[in-house]
Amino acid sequence: MPQYVFSYFPVKALGECVRLLLAYGGQEFEDKRVAFETEWPEMKPKTAFGQLPILEIDGKQYAQSVAISRYLGRKYGIAGADDEEAFEIDQNIDFVNDIRSKAATAHYENDPEVKAKKQETLVKDVYPLLLPKLNAIIEKNDGHIAAGKLTWGDFYFAGLFDYLKVMLQMPDLEAKYPAFKKLIDNVYSLPKVKAYADAAPKTDF
Amino acid sequence: MPQYVFSYFPVKALGECVRLLLAYGGQEFEDKRVAFETEWPEMKPKTAFGQLPILEIDGKQYAQSVAISRYLGRKYGIAGADDEEAFEIDQNIDFVNDIRSKAATAHYENDPEVKAKKQETLVKDVYPLLLPKLNAIIEKNDGHIAAGKLTWGDFYFAGLFDYLKVMLQMPDLEAKYPAFKKLIDNVYSLPKVKAYADAAPKTDF
Ligand SMILES: N[C@@H](CCC(=O)N[C@@H](CS)C(=O)NCC(=O)O)C(=O)O
Ligand SMILES: N[C@@H](CCC(=O)N[C@@H](CS)C(=O)NCC(=O)O)C(=O)O
Repeated sequence: MPQYVFSYFPVKALGECVRLLLAYGGQEFEDKRVAFETEWPEMKPKTAFGQLPILEIDGKQYAQSVAISRYLGRKYGIAGADDEEAFEIDQNIDFVNDIRSKAATAHYENDPEVKAKKQETLVKDVYPLLLPKLNAIIEKNDGHIAAGKLTWGDFYFAGLFDYLKVMLQMPDLEAKYPAFKKLIDNVYSLPKVKAYADAAPKTDF
Repeated sequence: MPQYVFSYFPVKALGECVRLLLAYGGQEFEDKRVAFETEWPEMKPKTAFGQLPILEIDGKQYAQSVAISRYLGRKYGIAGADDEEAFEIDQNIDFVNDIRSKAATAHYENDPEVKAKKQETLVKDVYPLLLPKLNAIIEKNDGHIAAGKLTWGDFYFAGLFDYLKVMLQMPDLEAKYPAFKKLIDNVYSLPKVKAYADAAPKTDF
């Protein structure tokens, strides 16, 4: 039995996708929640890129949340039936991350005045274009990110969702975009995922 | 013969990877260089996400530079020999894009004072960690981004390189990091790529 150790901070954010996928795959793993102040400084230089998440399989390190999710998706047979479907997942997840990185420009701004101005532009000019587009994609795919069925992309989006809400400053995101809610329910109603989520430490994002 | 139309602005940036891959694949394509002021406003609403690059194959749209590159990589047999290699390419390209998005926080800042401060932090605390790491990866992979051989990831990095230099404000980037130069030479010395590059419009980035 290969040994799986998953390391991330005690939040969902960029790590929950991997935890959800491992749960879905019925893969036992050590869910290492690294304390940022006390444990991380020592661990950081031992990671591939100085960041988390990191999945270790029998001691081999896998970094980068999207790359790990795609890799596990292939292992569990949910990475698309052919090159066209695999592409569609990749494309739509890259779009999700485009939205995330736009949100990050305001979220990670320290100067409160600059931050407020950035947020205003995003709310006025950017989100009203991008979020309905994403909602329509998920709608068209029957509550999935791509290919009209369950793929690793769904786990990525579902895992990221609470963090995305914080970054976008939209606590009612799923009320505004009902397809998002449908996707998340599709993931969390999978029995093994539900069992993991019910037992996992509760975190805000 | 399928019809390929590739649309991007008249720069390399996020589009050159696709042009280089199509050239490598011996695929004829219409190299549509869209004028930002005059042509783009009309085209924008017709694209999947309101952005370029877009590759059209027999009328079907493919968006997202990394997703398109991986898709063409699969078509041309340069996407890794197995799931481990495919993962390694994905992981290392995501790392390249982490560097790019950190650079973007300064590059796309409008306020000159804020911009200068951000750039200072990047130059002092961020690049000295990340760039040698990337150089070491390419060194270890014998002048490639992953798997010790030519993959679509090399095309992605080579296509992005001049833009990365601008974003990092490091005109001498390849002098500082000789493995970068080796990778780029590996790509541009491929005969079909060289033929394309020699004939292509010259652009600064
Ligand atoms: N592109 C990476 C980004 C990883 C990342 O940003 N990790 C952050 C936490 S979400 C981190 O490790 N921060 C601590 C540090 O940089 O020291 C991924 O998707 O895995
Ligand atoms: N994640 C996308 C980003 C694409 C992107 O940022 N495109 C820019 C040019 S580099 C664009 O289309 N800008 C024009 C606009 O947004 O109207 C990709 O990698 O393809």
